[in-house]
Amino acid sequence: MHGRSPFADQFGPALQGGWRARWFHIIFGHDDAAGRRFDVLLIIAILGSIAVAIFDTVAQAHVRYGTIFYALEWAFTLLFTLEYAMRIMVVARPWRYMRSFFGMVDLLAVLPTWISLIAAGSQYLLVVRALRILRIFRILKLTRYVGEADMLWYTLLRARRKVLVFFSAILTLVLIFGALMYLIEGPEDGFTSIPTSMYWAIVTMTTVGFGDITPKTALGKLLTSLIILIGYSIIAVPTGIFTAELAASMRARRKHVPCPHCGQIDHEGDASYCRLCGTPLVENED
Amino acid sequence: MHGRSPFADQFGPALQGGWRARWFHIIFGHDDAAGRRFDVLLIIAILGSIAVAIFDTVAQAHVRYGTIFYALEWAFTLLFTLEYAMRIMVVARPWRYMRSFFGMVDLLAVLPTWISLIAAGSQYLLVVRALRILRIFRILKLTRYVGEADMLWYTLLRARRKVLVFFSAILTLVLIFGALMYLIEGPEDGFTSIPTSMYWAIVTMTTVGFGDITPKTALGKLLTSLIILIGYSIIAVPTGIFTAELAASMRARRKHVPCPHCGQIDHEGDASYCRLCGTPLVENED
Amino acid sequence: MHGRSPFADQFGPALQGGWRARWFHIIFGHDDAAGRRFDVLLIIAILGSIAVAIFDTVAQAHVRYGTIFYALEWAFTLLFTLEYAMRIMVVARPWRYMRSFFGMVDLLAVLPTWISLIAAGSQYLLVVRALRILRIFRILKLTRYVGEADMLWYTLLRARRKVLVFFSAILTLVLIFGALMYLIEGPEDGFTSIPTSMYWAIVTMTTVGFGDITPKTALGKLLTSLIILIGYSIIAVPTGIFTAELAASMRARRKHVPCPHCGQIDHEGDASYCRLCGTPLVENED
Amino acid sequence: MHGRSPFADQFGPALQGGWRARWFHIIFGHDDAAGRRFDVLLIIAILGSIAVAIFDTVAQAHVRYGTIFYALEWAFTLLFTLEYAMRIMVVARPWRYMRSFFGMVDLLAVLPTWISLIAAGSQYLLVVRALRILRIFRILKLTRYVGEADMLWYTLLRARRKVLVFFSAILTLVLIFGALMYLIEGPEDGFTSIPTSMYWAIVTMTTVGFGDITPKTALGKLLTSLIILIGYSIIAVPTGIFTAELAASMRARRKHVPCPHCGQIDHEGDASYCRLCGTPLVENED
Repeated sequence: MHGRSPFADQFGPALQGGWRARWFHIIFGHDDAAGRRFDVLLIIAILGSIAVAIFDTVAQAHVRYGTIFYALEWAFTLLFTLEYAMRIMVVARPWRYMRSFFGMVDLLAVLPTWISLIAAGSQYLLVVRALRILRIFRILKLTRYVGEADMLWYTLLRARRKVLVFFSAILTLVLIFGALMYLIEGPEDGFTSIPTSMYWAIVTMTTVGFGDITPKTALGKLLTSLIILIGYSIIAVPTGIFTAELAASMRARRKHVPCPHCGQIDHEGDASYCRLCGTPLVENED
Repeated sequence: MHGRSPFADQFGPALQGGWRARWFHIIFGHDDAAGRRFDVLLIIAILGSIAVAIFDTVAQAHVRYGTIFYALEWAFTLLFTLEYAMRIMVVARPWRYMRSFFGMVDLLAVLPTWISLIAAGSQYLLVVRALRILRIFRILKLTRYVGEADMLWYTLLRARRKVLVFFSAILTLVLIFGALMYLIEGPEDGFTSIPTSMYWAIVTMTTVGFGDITPKTALGKLLTSLIILIGYSIIAVPTGIFTAELAASMRARRKHVPCPHCGQIDHEGDASYCRLCGTPLVENED
Repeated sequence: MHGRSPFADQFGPALQGGWRARWFHIIFGHDDAAGRRFDVLLIIAILGSIAVAIFDTVAQAHVRYGTIFYALEWAFTLLFTLEYAMRIMVVARPWRYMRSFFGMVDLLAVLPTWISLIAAGSQYLLVVRALRILRIFRILKLTRYVGEADMLWYTLLRARRKVLVFFSAILTLVLIFGALMYLIEGPEDGFTSIPTSMYWAIVTMTTVGFGDITPKTALGKLLTSLIILIGYSIIAVPTGIFTAELAASMRARRKHVPCPHCGQIDHEGDASYCRLCGTPLVENED
Repeated sequence: MHGRSPFADQFGPALQGGWRARWFHIIFGHDDAAGRRFDVLLIIAILGSIAVAIFDTVAQAHVRYGTIFYALEWAFTLLFTLEYAMRIMVVARPWRYMRSFFGMVDLLAVLPTWISLIAAGSQYLLVVRALRILRIFRILKLTRYVGEADMLWYTLLRARRKVLVFFSAILTLVLIFGALMYLIEGPEDGFTSIPTSMYWAIVTMTTVGFGDITPKTALGKLLTSLIILIGYSIIAVPTGIFTAELAASMRARRKHVPCPHCGQIDHEGDASYCRLCGTPLVENED
């Protein structure tokens, strides 16, 4: 393992100029002391900027520490702008980086504060900064948690068709029950429209049960009991799907190597040949 | 696979007349470009008509776009009436189609609008149109999701006796706890009758917890805590039943054919080659 | 299988007098047409009497059909009294029957109405009649559901120690979190006492969430979020316990035969010898 | 097994003086009649003192039985102080005991009442006494439940990394959805700040659903439905993780020793004889 995010390779280190290559390794690399120190500082800055944006929305805190928050917000914005400029300068293909997902997130995290200088209301865009928390996951991706996260992720991927079938069934039930409850209870009991009734049906079938809308008539309560019991039964379905897939994953850790002949990517852990076309699998040694 | 719904075969294509046989394949078939184009148009029309029926119940939307919705509703009704007439004309046994489940649904989807010309209040029947969404499932049945849906369905079928035993136990507990809470709390705290108490017991044991009715007395709160903990324990039962059955289903999908070369006997369900030595697997034909 | 409840054998048929032996088979037996007809009538009568008791508590129904309900209640009471008298007369050991669980339930189901003649308030005892629904389970016990119910029951039995450990942990958390929330929120926000706080903690940790008591302070909301996330994690525990036990049950249907030497009663389905002492197991042939 | 808590060994029995060694065995030991009697008395005293502290917070009970509660509290405090003094006296290394976890808990359980003599408000510390309930677990640890509790505990430990990955994902979703709902609904509908919105997102995604804050706008209800369905899907994840780990634990408890007579290799964990042929199993000593 190179200790460098595989995503970084697509931008490539800047070749000309020693300082740019060195900073590329500090910013995009994770394998030496300087790279790890940069990662830790970046995580702290991201969490700090998110914390400032969050607590600035609390009325009492805004009144009391508003100016400090304002100063901190500009400090983080300047820091992230500097970081963004550095990232552009040290990569070999700046455009490719700028159009990548994380390149967009990095830009969107600093834009709102700059826009607020010329236009009001842009502070709402600060929420975009929350997406920068995903960069933390990227950094952590290279740690020992990657195996666990990968297993959970591939389990979800393998279960995705079952989950889609399941959600189609849920939404059909929500449509039918929502329409029925709208007819039975009507607007005077809070079921003001079929979309509202469907919102209520989702809240009820998933056992959330806010209680902002509740049935008042006897027939409505009877139907609600039925809807709840059906929802209660099918709560078992996604759990069952995921558990069964995860148990299968754990029994035989899967191998995710594309078959050189047919491209099939999902193999059992001890496979040496593709089970679909019989081609020997080449493991990537890193 | 014929690419044609097996249900369609029972009505049979009309034999006399070239245009009827061709339209039978367009309407009931799914295997050529024309059939698939008809399917896509039908899905769009069904979703569109349901969307119109849903949003027409929103008060603001009704005031603003009421006339457009009215026009659209008649457009969809005429379209579906035409489709219904076509279906009757192109099948060899029209009566059998008309009495089939989907024949009834197709008719019920157009009736309410026509009835509204001569009788008020029939717009409530529009909800029946929601059932037409099931036709979408019928069309999608022929795609690659059929295997996943079938596995979920047969798992539910195999678990049905366990689920019935479980629901009998739940309803007995609901009856006993509902009656007890009615005695302890009484009408002044919202437990106005035993049926209402049973509705509350279902809402509580399934962890929905609307909060429209809540215990006020100390004894009532104690009993509620007990009921909740019991409900919390038995929430495990349907999940456990479904998961165990699904895991058994997934295990059963594995292929148990000895590899002719290395003797490995445990393969994935879609394997054609042994994953350990790449030898083609010979399936036992039965 | 004799088609007769094994519980009935302990009372024994009355030997002297032909009509008593015949009625014993009708009342306690389930294997001939007369016995099955009696069972069906009894189930109908029990469900009917419970329905009357339930709907009599609905205010509107009581006003309208109060006298009919009153008449029906007396009819069912006379019927069940007659049944109780018959049961005593036809068994060989009446005292043993009267002190058995179902003997008590049969008596308690008729007592309240009789007591209401001499004392007010006894109608509350009518709830006891709900316990008679258990007799329905007894009758159904002899059907094909017995295997499924047994499997669920023995799975719960085998999991009971794990469930006890789990509930002790839950109650400790409820105590600690309840006390903390009482300190943080205090009586003005609805957390009037530690028992009330513990009731709230149970309602919250089990994801019921009535909303009758909710945190108002920032610290209270933070602690609540923590409590919920902990509750959300441990919801997995009972489900996991039950599923794992059920999956084990399904893999190898257990054999419940006491070992003649050491008394161990829980064996694997294909066991011929006790795994603890090596004694051959004698299967009961019935 | 010595029948003595392994933790006790680190303090060691006092060697000089017969009565101290005897009392050490009574207080820290669990294997003879005197030790077990002390354990039972201690459990009763702990539960009693917790019950008094709990019910003293109920306003009516405080008014009525306040003086009795006050007397009982001092009685328990004196008792626990005596017990604490005894524990210090009979162990060979008092300092090591006093700095151990249970030594701290034992001290903190008596301090609040003593402090209340010189300073007000210390009654809040009584909550610490709830921690003494953990001593009950310590005593029960030596019973037959230890195996079950250990299995649950190690299963949780083995699943901890997966659970951490899962909680990071949850908190990221909570942050993003909380910020979005704050923008969409705003302070007038109860979403007064992003922290409050995040509290609401946790309450909603975990299906608790208090209903103290609910979306009022159409867009808010749509996003809420989405949040709920996502929360509903991922409720499967911790359950799946725990179940799969527990099933693996239970499988691992099986004994895989070939039977010397019939070769059967798969036995239950506590088997001493082959269940198929009754031959004693020879365990491999390692």
